[in-house]
Amino acid sequence: MARVVVDVMLKPEILDPQGQAIARKLPQMGFEGVTGVRQGKRFEVELEGPADEAALEQVRKIAETLLANPVIENFEVFVE
Amino acid sequence: MARVVVDVMLKPEILDPQGQAIARKLPQMGFEGVTGVRQGKRFEVELEGPADEAALEQVRKIAETLLANPVIENFEVFVE
Repeated sequence: MARVVVDVMLKPEILDPQGQAIARKLPQMGFEGVTGVRQGKRFEVELEGPADEAALEQVRKIAETLLANPVIENFEVFVE
Repeated sequence: MARVVVDVMLKPEILDPQGQAIARKLPQMGFEGVTGVRQGKRFEVELEGPADEAALEQVRKIAETLLANPVIENFEVFVE
């Protein structure tokens, strides 16, 4: 059994209002020195078998079709 | 300037209906061998200064108060 992680983030050129709202709130809460926040998603995918190249390729396909929207999001797949 | 990442995941004992919905959908889409999916959040926090221990401690406080709900979520802070 293996765990594969898929990180999904909005592409840099896509506006992220959730992240901006967090960044704007920080100084009011007494936190200084943060210039930006981006919010994305993290998926932990548990596999029955080993995380070999074939399994990772399948997880990449899952990310592309179900976990991320490749038009506006980038994703990264790695073994944890 | 440094980037600090905050990963926020539901605690293992907390039900994750979003992850379960994804896991249930996979076999119908032709993807086999996935035994579970958990969905969480990933934040990328950009700092004005270096990611030294004081800055990381501040990001941990931000995570605790704003990014995560410590009652039901665990979080991890690391430099990228």
